[in-house]
Amino acid sequence: MSRIVRIHEYGNASVLKIENLEVPAPASDEVQIAVKAIGINRAEVMFRNHAYLQEAEFPSRLGYEAAGVVSAIGSGVKDINKGDAVSIVPPLDIARWGTYGEVVNVPARLVVKHAKNLSFEKAAAVWMQYVTAWGALVDYGKLTKGDFLIVTAASSSVALAAIQIARMVGAIVIASTRTSNKRQALIDAGAHHVVAVDEEDIVQRVMEITGGVGARLAFDPVVGPSFDKLAASLARGGTLIQYGALSPEPTPFPPFTVLGKSLTLRGYLYSEVVSDDAALERAKDFINGGLESGALAPLIAKIFRLDQIQEAHLFLESNTQVGKVIVTV
Amino acid sequence: MSRIVRIHEYGNASVLKIENLEVPAPASDEVQIAVKAIGINRAEVMFRNHAYLQEAEFPSRLGYEAAGVVSAIGSGVKDINKGDAVSIVPPLDIARWGTYGEVVNVPARLVVKHAKNLSFEKAAAVWMQYVTAWGALVDYGKLTKGDFLIVTAASSSVALAAIQIARMVGAIVIASTRTSNKRQALIDAGAHHVVAVDEEDIVQRVMEITGGVGARLAFDPVVGPSFDKLAASLARGGTLIQYGALSPEPTPFPPFTVLGKSLTLRGYLYSEVVSDDAALERAKDFINGGLESGALAPLIAKIFRLDQIQEAHLFLESNTQVGKVIVTV
Repeated sequence: MSRIVRIHEYGNASVLKIENLEVPAPASDEVQIAVKAIGINRAEVMFRNHAYLQEAEFPSRLGYEAAGVVSAIGSGVKDINKGDAVSIVPPLDIARWGTYGEVVNVPARLVVKHAKNLSFEKAAAVWMQYVTAWGALVDYGKLTKGDFLIVTAASSSVALAAIQIARMVGAIVIASTRTSNKRQALIDAGAHHVVAVDEEDIVQRVMEITGGVGARLAFDPVVGPSFDKLAASLARGGTLIQYGALSPEPTPFPPFTVLGKSLTLRGYLYSEVVSDDAALERAKDFINGGLESGALAPLIAKIFRLDQIQEAHLFLESNTQVGKVIVTV
Repeated sequence: MSRIVRIHEYGNASVLKIENLEVPAPASDEVQIAVKAIGINRAEVMFRNHAYLQEAEFPSRLGYEAAGVVSAIGSGVKDINKGDAVSIVPPLDIARWGTYGEVVNVPARLVVKHAKNLSFEKAAAVWMQYVTAWGALVDYGKLTKGDFLIVTAASSSVALAAIQIARMVGAIVIASTRTSNKRQALIDAGAHHVVAVDEEDIVQRVMEITGGVGARLAFDPVVGPSFDKLAASLARGGTLIQYGALSPEPTPFPPFTVLGKSLTLRGYLYSEVVSDDAALERAKDFINGGLESGALAPLIAKIFRLDQIQEAHLFLESNTQVGKVIVTV
């Protein structure tokens, strides 16, 4: 029997229940992992709240990320052995291979023997954030030296990963955040400029920073009412990559801004990389390279224990953190 | 002195005034044309109504398209001679080289010796519609054999051009229009399927037609409240090309549809082709080739005389036409 987190209904953090369950043997293409650390994502909070792209079938496991030690392998699995220290690239289903628990089975193709210098806590904070940011900015957006990039909700783990990846390729990062509270933390995290959108006009600031041209790319998980100003901060021919939909408010679409500047808006999910074997290998190479060189270094906001899973969700929902929320097992 | 249409204020069609004015000699890089036919565009109606991307400086000429005979050439102009029958690729300014008049000066690089089988009326109906549709669908959208394409506001001249270009490359066209009134005219114009959006659910119809997959591309000048359903009619990874903003109503942006299907939304203006010499040459080659083979054939809705310019605008605004509104001089 293993301690596994499940939900039996949608609701606030109190619906997260730790239960003693039997975890079956891994399927032929799966690996079983004794989990040491779990990465907590906003996707799981949204799933729990019934605000996610995927619907639950109750009772439901949940969770996208974890790191641990291989405890069993399926009959068809090669190149991974019992005892390997591994981490998990988020699978395409938030529930089926839910990582919130002591023991998980996950698809072998998504199991990575991560850089040896990483702790389990950091290894559980790698793949969602760097795969999403690499896929959107590098693989799709062709971000390159000298490009101006706006990163919104900049204290989130994916945004911090985007800042590090942007620096790796030589781009200039304009981080946007609500208030000045996190300004220093974002500068410390690598942002070249910080805009506090509740206190400053983002369009004016971005135009000042870019010499009136605007940014070539924006990377935004929020949309909602701020979408219009974000579009107006882009350069002619610029691209707004939307990788989430966190705003509970409607998003007015600015047709004349989009038309007048020939803008591109692109919905982007990490699953584009994960469902494409070649892209997944490129992602692993880029990210493992960055982790080994130290150019990429996951920032951890706070670490909880598995029996504090509800507190971990509440902390993520407080929006006070800078970086990743981790649960150790 | 020549009869030239100008506006001295924004307003309804009555602000279009025919005045006798002296037209200067063409600049060194310009060609002067004795206009035989003018193509009327919705852009000019919007400009007149103060609803266009460009602001007027009064009194203002206006107009994007014309065909006629070269009456003078600038000192630096090559390959075009007095007496040539030519038509005009719309310039980047709706007012500076306004084509509504007996005599116009236009940039030589935008003057085309069109296919000889074209009347002046048809030659004045070529370049806005085919350059816009070619640029968006072929040059940007890579429309190809077997693709499903949704063309909205399908009785407009640009939409009809899109239908012809889509057939040239082997795509399957789903034309959307408000009511069934224009259904037969759109089938006659080459649409494979017609959806009357006030009478049928476009998402359901497109899914039926595409076997549940959705369309790869949509080509839309409207946006507004129908944007959401148009996005929902697209396939995973599909692209909505917005080439206008005709709806006076707000456009709610559908963040989960865009995210869940990795959609791309792209603002597109004909000016992307016109401001790029290489793209402009590719456009001229493709379009002249299509005109010569008969694959492209401008559809004319109604022809007015220059002294009926107000009536021509009123007719365009009535939305009863299928095809281009032309004014002869």
